[in-house]
Amino acid sequence: MAAPLDPVTGTPVVAMVGGGQLSRMTHQAAIALGQSLRVLAADPAESAALVAGDVRLGAHTDLQALAAFAEGASVVTFDHEHVPTEHLRALQAAGHRVAPGPDALVHAQDKLVLRRALAAAGEPQPAWAQVDTPADVAAFAAAHGWPVVLKTPRGGYDGKGVFVVPDEAAAADLLQTHGTLLAEQRVDMVRELAAQVARSPFGQVAVYPVVETVQRDGVCNEALVPAPGLSDELATAAQELAVRIADRLGVVGMLAVELFETADGILVNELAMRPHNSGHWTIDGAVTSQFEQHLRAVLDYPLGSTAMTAPVVVMANVLGGDAAADDWAGPGLDERIHHFMAHWPDVKLHWYGKGQRRGRKLGHVTARGTELEEVRARAVAAARYLADGVVDPAFAFEEEH
Amino acid sequence: MAAPLDPVTGTPVVAMVGGGQLSRMTHQAAIALGQSLRVLAADPAESAALVAGDVRLGAHTDLQALAAFAEGASVVTFDHEHVPTEHLRALQAAGHRVAPGPDALVHAQDKLVLRRALAAAGEPQPAWAQVDTPADVAAFAAAHGWPVVLKTPRGGYDGKGVFVVPDEAAAADLLQTHGTLLAEQRVDMVRELAAQVARSPFGQVAVYPVVETVQRDGVCNEALVPAPGLSDELATAAQELAVRIADRLGVVGMLAVELFETADGILVNELAMRPHNSGHWTIDGAVTSQFEQHLRAVLDYPLGSTAMTAPVVVMANVLGGDAAADDWAGPGLDERIHHFMAHWPDVKLHWYGKGQRRGRKLGHVTARGTELEEVRARAVAAARYLADGVVDPAFAFEEEH
Repeated sequence: MAAPLDPVTGTPVVAMVGGGQLSRMTHQAAIALGQSLRVLAADPAESAALVAGDVRLGAHTDLQALAAFAEGASVVTFDHEHVPTEHLRALQAAGHRVAPGPDALVHAQDKLVLRRALAAAGEPQPAWAQVDTPADVAAFAAAHGWPVVLKTPRGGYDGKGVFVVPDEAAAADLLQTHGTLLAEQRVDMVRELAAQVARSPFGQVAVYPVVETVQRDGVCNEALVPAPGLSDELATAAQELAVRIADRLGVVGMLAVELFETADGILVNELAMRPHNSGHWTIDGAVTSQFEQHLRAVLDYPLGSTAMTAPVVVMANVLGGDAAADDWAGPGLDERIHHFMAHWPDVKLHWYGKGQRRGRKLGHVTARGTELEEVRARAVAAARYLADGVVDPAFAFEEEH
Repeated sequence: MAAPLDPVTGTPVVAMVGGGQLSRMTHQAAIALGQSLRVLAADPAESAALVAGDVRLGAHTDLQALAAFAEGASVVTFDHEHVPTEHLRALQAAGHRVAPGPDALVHAQDKLVLRRALAAAGEPQPAWAQVDTPADVAAFAAAHGWPVVLKTPRGGYDGKGVFVVPDEAAAADLLQTHGTLLAEQRVDMVRELAAQVARSPFGQVAVYPVVETVQRDGVCNEALVPAPGLSDELATAAQELAVRIADRLGVVGMLAVELFETADGILVNELAMRPHNSGHWTIDGAVTSQFEQHLRAVLDYPLGSTAMTAPVVVMANVLGGDAAADDWAGPGLDERIHHFMAHWPDVKLHWYGKGQRRGRKLGHVTARGTELEEVRARAVAAARYLADGVVDPAFAFEEEH
């Protein structure tokens, strides 16, 4: 069955569940391909709903809303992992294309399912166990030591649902609240990396450079590209690992493999099967952005070049900071954007249009160049100014001298 | 008076009159700045109306529609030159910001007004005269020779409204149809160039590299960046000329100065005060695209870097060709896009979503690299395949061997 095409434009219609910034940036990419992203948003003020032409309001947990949303679309895809598996199967049964499919996506939804699959495949990961009782946790700790990392199998993201637990009593509390958990050995890691690949139904795979992600409070804060000082061997190992996972799980679309780098090599932390924060740099720093690549992959189009457009690229998130506080007395958003543009004419802004709240991902900036230290300093100072209205002394505004 | 900001996002609202591909690509740029372009379209199937979130339907000649469209917007701007001057004055009188303003824009609307202004400023241009009678044309030809180029002062674009006239009888026919015309000496030109600058109300100016535009049947077909073989002196002269014009006319937004290069130097052909086809290369080839730059300028934001992101960039238009014919039996659009992606994974596609008609601008492609000949061949072959379904032998598809 050929995928339906839009009768006006003759181009495909990708329907993306979720109205966040990932959908927003995917719509930008869709525009270049002659398409208009169809967005399922819960609220008209969501990031993508503010800018897309074809917005449907509904909950991603509502099968009826999902079915109506899928009607006439070439393929249904996602800007998050929260659509129930049974709903995805129902959409497929009704003849809709779903990418990634439920059998793949479950590995990004359920951390226990992922751990089992990686174990079966013999892929490197931290020591882990499913724990149902405090005694299970104690047994795991006896083998791997305290503290133990306990994770809710489902629903966690950006550090939510992750607990570092010092003893059996703390574990008991969490098990009582959350039920079955995933226990993981606390990894003595050097840093975090991310390997991104795209895979199409045809089986074509495109591989991006491996990125170092710098976290703050469990949230990705910076992406350094390519991961500085990473050996060719380890970079290739990370890329090959991502390709193997994409193939084995039958991923369609973008796959981000979050990795821990340790003294002994790399371990898989978790997966995302969609455009991912660690790949935002590709909009300005790669020939094909992860958003365009995701569209290509879910449509079974040939994939685009992943070559970098500069030797060094750094992406820095703008998280809601001091300037998002109710009692903020400094420059407002529009004034901060004004100053940002004056001081960093070569740093690219991506603002998501969301309401400002502390800790919320409000936007990101991308800097390009040749020297990591310089590029990173520029990106981080610009992001910090947008978030907190704070001027890094190294980038002091002239009018303040 | 501070410009109104969107109450949900806290960012400005730019209202662009016209629903064509220039608005479409400006919306893409607006998304990154946290904005959503408000679009005035005549038809919901127009290029920008297909993808924008805030589309108003109405005619650009209808003052009531324009006034409603301007309400609550931070600034009103244009993707074409066809809004009547008196309507722009009425919007200003009602307190709306209009950029470029009517006093500047008239120079892009009326070729006679432009010629007079350039003459007053002493800027280089072809010999010209206002002609109202066949005798006027004959007198002009006596001084400058036949054929004479006659142009309708208003309403022409893409070669429309331009006539190369061999004798007085032909001139008489045109004058009878069109009334007063602009007569120009037919220039013995080497090639056409375009110099683009952006100017903000504050007076900041940003200058792009000078481009060679390759025309076919009066329509821009390719842009070669930087203009190959152009001396630094001439490039600087063209850029300085564009800056002088922007300043003197008080342009706000993007200004494209279309130039004839002759053996003796450069002459001004005409102006566009908006993003322009000769600047489409900037989306993929410059740090700041002309679309983002236009938004920055009309909002009086500081302007972005115009640095190129590759040594050589070539943009090729896709004009409706054989594949747009009703009896076309070759691969359909979606199939052509598929093949395009397979063969040119590093050429960037920009498809406008418009109905396919012969000669219509349907999209463009951009190639980047280091060697002009190679980059140009790639861009042109890709554009030709999309337009005509014809495979350049140098890029023959493997499966056809």
